[in-house]
Amino acid sequence: MKPKVSVIGASGYVGGELLRLLLTHPSVEVKYCYSRSFAKKYIHTVHPNLRKKSELMFTDEDPVSIASQSDISFFALPHGQSSKIMQRVLETGTRVIDLGADFRLEDPEDYKIWYKFEHPSPSLLQKFVYGLPELWAFKIKGARNIAVPGCIATSAILSLAPLAKMIQTTAIVDAKVGSSGSGGKPSPATHYSERFGVVRVYKPAGHRHTAEIIQEISKIKGEKVNISMSAHAVNMVRGIQTTTHIPSDDIPDIKELWRQFRQFYSNSPFVRIVRDKQGNNKYPDPKFTIGSNFADVGFEIDVEGRRVLAFGALDNLVKGAAGNAVQCMNLMMGFDEEEGLGYIPLHPV
Amino acid sequence: MKPKVSVIGASGYVGGELLRLLLTHPSVEVKYCYSRSFAKKYIHTVHPNLRKKSELMFTDEDPVSIASQSDISFFALPHGQSSKIMQRVLETGTRVIDLGADFRLEDPEDYKIWYKFEHPSPSLLQKFVYGLPELWAFKIKGARNIAVPGCIATSAILSLAPLAKMIQTTAIVDAKVGSSGSGGKPSPATHYSERFGVVRVYKPAGHRHTAEIIQEISKIKGEKVNISMSAHAVNMVRGIQTTTHIPSDDIPDIKELWRQFRQFYSNSPFVRIVRDKQGNNKYPDPKFTIGSNFADVGFEIDVEGRRVLAFGALDNLVKGAAGNAVQCMNLMMGFDEEEGLGYIPLHPV
Amino acid sequence: MKPKVSVIGASGYVGGELLRLLLTHPSVEVKYCYSRSFAKKYIHTVHPNLRKKSELMFTDEDPVSIASQSDISFFALPHGQSSKIMQRVLETGTRVIDLGADFRLEDPEDYKIWYKFEHPSPSLLQKFVYGLPELWAFKIKGARNIAVPGCIATSAILSLAPLAKMIQTTAIVDAKVGSSGSGGKPSPATHYSERFGVVRVYKPAGHRHTAEIIQEISKIKGEKVNISMSAHAVNMVRGIQTTTHIPSDDIPDIKELWRQFRQFYSNSPFVRIVRDKQGNNKYPDPKFTIGSNFADVGFEIDVEGRRVLAFGALDNLVKGAAGNAVQCMNLMMGFDEEEGLGYIPLHPV
Amino acid sequence: MKPKVSVIGASGYVGGELLRLLLTHPSVEVKYCYSRSFAKKYIHTVHPNLRKKSELMFTDEDPVSIASQSDISFFALPHGQSSKIMQRVLETGTRVIDLGADFRLEDPEDYKIWYKFEHPSPSLLQKFVYGLPELWAFKIKGARNIAVPGCIATSAILSLAPLAKMIQTTAIVDAKVGSSGSGGKPSPATHYSERFGVVRVYKPAGHRHTAEIIQEISKIKGEKVNISMSAHAVNMVRGIQTTTHIPSDDIPDIKELWRQFRQFYSNSPFVRIVRDKQGNNKYPDPKFTIGSNFADVGFEIDVEGRRVLAFGALDNLVKGAAGNAVQCMNLMMGFDEEEGLGYIPLHPV
Repeated sequence: MKPKVSVIGASGYVGGELLRLLLTHPSVEVKYCYSRSFAKKYIHTVHPNLRKKSELMFTDEDPVSIASQSDISFFALPHGQSSKIMQRVLETGTRVIDLGADFRLEDPEDYKIWYKFEHPSPSLLQKFVYGLPELWAFKIKGARNIAVPGCIATSAILSLAPLAKMIQTTAIVDAKVGSSGSGGKPSPATHYSERFGVVRVYKPAGHRHTAEIIQEISKIKGEKVNISMSAHAVNMVRGIQTTTHIPSDDIPDIKELWRQFRQFYSNSPFVRIVRDKQGNNKYPDPKFTIGSNFADVGFEIDVEGRRVLAFGALDNLVKGAAGNAVQCMNLMMGFDEEEGLGYIPLHPV
Repeated sequence: MKPKVSVIGASGYVGGELLRLLLTHPSVEVKYCYSRSFAKKYIHTVHPNLRKKSELMFTDEDPVSIASQSDISFFALPHGQSSKIMQRVLETGTRVIDLGADFRLEDPEDYKIWYKFEHPSPSLLQKFVYGLPELWAFKIKGARNIAVPGCIATSAILSLAPLAKMIQTTAIVDAKVGSSGSGGKPSPATHYSERFGVVRVYKPAGHRHTAEIIQEISKIKGEKVNISMSAHAVNMVRGIQTTTHIPSDDIPDIKELWRQFRQFYSNSPFVRIVRDKQGNNKYPDPKFTIGSNFADVGFEIDVEGRRVLAFGALDNLVKGAAGNAVQCMNLMMGFDEEEGLGYIPLHPV
Repeated sequence: MKPKVSVIGASGYVGGELLRLLLTHPSVEVKYCYSRSFAKKYIHTVHPNLRKKSELMFTDEDPVSIASQSDISFFALPHGQSSKIMQRVLETGTRVIDLGADFRLEDPEDYKIWYKFEHPSPSLLQKFVYGLPELWAFKIKGARNIAVPGCIATSAILSLAPLAKMIQTTAIVDAKVGSSGSGGKPSPATHYSERFGVVRVYKPAGHRHTAEIIQEISKIKGEKVNISMSAHAVNMVRGIQTTTHIPSDDIPDIKELWRQFRQFYSNSPFVRIVRDKQGNNKYPDPKFTIGSNFADVGFEIDVEGRRVLAFGALDNLVKGAAGNAVQCMNLMMGFDEEEGLGYIPLHPV
Repeated sequence: MKPKVSVIGASGYVGGELLRLLLTHPSVEVKYCYSRSFAKKYIHTVHPNLRKKSELMFTDEDPVSIASQSDISFFALPHGQSSKIMQRVLETGTRVIDLGADFRLEDPEDYKIWYKFEHPSPSLLQKFVYGLPELWAFKIKGARNIAVPGCIATSAILSLAPLAKMIQTTAIVDAKVGSSGSGGKPSPATHYSERFGVVRVYKPAGHRHTAEIIQEISKIKGEKVNISMSAHAVNMVRGIQTTTHIPSDDIPDIKELWRQFRQFYSNSPFVRIVRDKQGNNKYPDPKFTIGSNFADVGFEIDVEGRRVLAFGALDNLVKGAAGNAVQCMNLMMGFDEEEGLGYIPLHPV
């Protein structure tokens, strides 16, 4: 009998993407789709792509009860929600994959700084593994609880990781993101006539994902690094691109960078190193990742400008959320890492 | 050993989409990717989505020779090319699935009228089956050669078929199409700055797909019907939507239409009847089909305006081309009809 | 001293566009910008394009009081609002240009049929002139109160008017519209992630603008005509395109159509007849009208399909609303018809 | 009699935008529109927005001859073209406004470094004034020859100028640009299906506009500064946005930055300082500048990340090219600086 999985927070975009992947995953069975607002509606009424693919309905049964009946519980709730009930959830014995932010940071102090949030159960933080398989596969394999990274953080960390040791004074992440990261709830900021065609600086400093990037890259470097990030909304629904600018007095040559990236990602089926000499795809571009679990990474040097550059691109709902969560599940459960994640990106789209 | 399939014309968008589907199809093996212009290049240099999914290269080996080594040969060439060599191709004993227009029309005269083209091998027309499984599954199962319908034709025919008998004086198809149907070759009409944001009437009358629509709907109705079509380019890459206006003196009620559609498509796994009472998906919209082999169909009545309306929506590269071709292959080869075509559409995208 | 104009309903997109045009109009002075929700805020906080162009603030002073201090009062309110207070407004002696629907239809019965609305002051309907200068310039010149046509109606009527006498059994308008016509209020239907990339059939039958089209084309034809309309939302912010399909047993030749259109619009500075033999602009496309008061119209014949086609394209906020309103004001006030409306469309955009 | 102006290179997008502005400029008369490829065609065949606004035709008369008959000659040619003939052009006595790159850099060595180009007439460089009125109005007023800045450079320089003295080790410009800056010639990179939806790193280092930014900001700072730039193509036709990251050990407070910007631009009618506390327009966004000559600038501090940020946004064809050129012409000719440039941006668009 296949393990049973449930999605708590199944009516959002991340929840819907989890369902797209889990419904066709060969080794698990979807048990519950929790949504308070849409209880007793067919899931395709909210996720029209699922029409004719599933007869499941949303339920508003208590999440702890759902967890108690599930081998794996995916949480895709707004920040601050899952930590309120996590103690009771863990007591049910379910494995947890949390796609929210509540268990990503290891130091409870960081929640105060970046989230202005007093963590309600700081002692649980150490029970979660940061779910980035390209860095922590060995931990994930032995874990019972996973905190899935933020979407921008995933792009930034994966592109920066092989260069972590080269960071001198600072690294500056300039992120460009699609609208789906803002979720499915209408607001003035996401009103089509206002959101279409923008290059909107929506979070120039202090973006919460910055904390994760600092945490993870500092671990690799072996000391606390200064990293900052600015986030821009651009005219697309899916996709994240990050260009990270690393001021440097000691520019490596391109071959050396190739070597670093190749070595770092020699065992990473979902990372593609993109650096072509010609064409439209010389560097990572989210356009070429849509629908897939790929994270594309790349690099460049600017001798005149005294910079090293790292590029990342991915589909924020897949490798930036649901796909990465499924990848973590595969590792944790001993499935093949790529199982249920064989989707080739769409092109053109 | 799995049957070997080859793609002749593998560097275009339809060819690329065939590769996306065939590379992950469990029952076939991709043997050759023919492209004269890109011979000896990795297929991912042209189709960046395929990076890390295949090490195949394009070849410029003679297509007839390729066909002779292939159990199934997919042709995705510009109109007029496959018919030039088809006699020799068929002599190799390969099965053929032609995604071009050369074998879609049964009457050679229609090529003169609609294509201004004297067909070079009219006697071969009868050796091909029109590859629309929702209408001709039984023929496709016994066929060796398939002519895959045009993308607009597929949307129009599938949405009109259940209503064919209701057409009185005429049916008028108003089509809205994405850019990918125009292929990958740059031109003034597809220059981004010119193509972005248009609602461009690019073929108000005489569009070649009209011939297929008339041919197929007339067969269903049992007599020649007058159908016309106008094609508009709109601001998207993938997708086709058709609204067909059917003037009528005898408007059926909605329940009757539901009954017709349900009955007609009771055995069609890739057709979804879309007619919701609320939400953003009341009628078919290509947005909810992207990446999948679904054709969504729907209907409405306009009592005041004395019209019946039929709606169709699909991804022009999948159900409008490559996906439908694979569906035909599945039927012809005795595979499960849905094999390799389980992709759920992306949402949002 | 210049005449004083006020805008009642100044915070919506139509209100904003009125301000864009009126603030630079050489012959009038903007006096009041009424908005209940944004009273005491600078107008540029809602209309960011107006930053540094005006220091005006919204007011929530009573509209009747505003009208009493204004030579011309523009109303840009949701349907049903202006008719509630119009009797008192007219008593102030102000001239009225209403951009809503409340005074467009001449027959109060039509409001019941199309708007499910019992008109509160049917006797006032005859005090308003339908503000389409290309048809009714002579009436507008002598009018004190104008009802500005709906945006889709304007495109459909202007493209159909020269052909009105050719309509036999029916004319079917297939409209494609941008998002700005839905206004500035967030909703699930206009949430960016859901609205982006659609071809959404949002009103296949019974669209209220149909009533205006029937009213005006019937007047030209001299008898009641059957016209129906289907409206589709497409992936753009500004712009409307209409393709009208006219089944016909008696197809005119192209020269005759050229003659009809040239004659009909020989004195219409804002109508462009677009029918080129090549290029990207063979037929009207909203892309080439953005920001301007132009309505582009064109035509085609389909001999095989037994249709005549009429095409219209315009910027829904300009010729479809605010620009047309200013054009009416110019005529009514004896200004030059083109005054303040010299904007050339942007290209590319 | 009004001064006569001609446009050499009138068929490109910058040429078309010059015509849009010059045809409605009250103080000049357009004499010649030079285009070798489109000679004897109406200008609206290439610039469909100009239909019905002008009966001018393109000419292929010799540019030097055109210059000799023009009071002011605008050059909008590809890089390297105008410098070949400039000596002879200047001898005609015409004033020159060059929108290309050939006379922007003061040091001929810089052309070797950044353009890999041996300047054919280095002695002419000193005869041109860098046409950025916000910095050099007094020079432009006395000039006869103007080199109009590059579009990305304009956004970067205007947003950085008030902060020039704060730059310590480096300033890093991250630019996001629309497609129209690539011109009107089809290419694989600008093929709609490939260009739509991208976040494409098209020039991560060594972009030629960097040279201008260094030149101008170094002049303000009083010493050579290190500035680098990375350019990204995003999903829009018009518009440029630049976020400039300035690592700093000494973060100023926001009030101080307000003071600097207000003081710097106290006499600049086309610069808007955008820094709101809420809404969709907190920082500069090209969406709110489309069609106008505004450059929006803004700033932020990141105390945690030890950065100062400068933001710029403009319409690349207006303030980034043609509008700025007209502004220079106004100053040079003694017209009002804002003459013919009163266009309010479109919103929404």
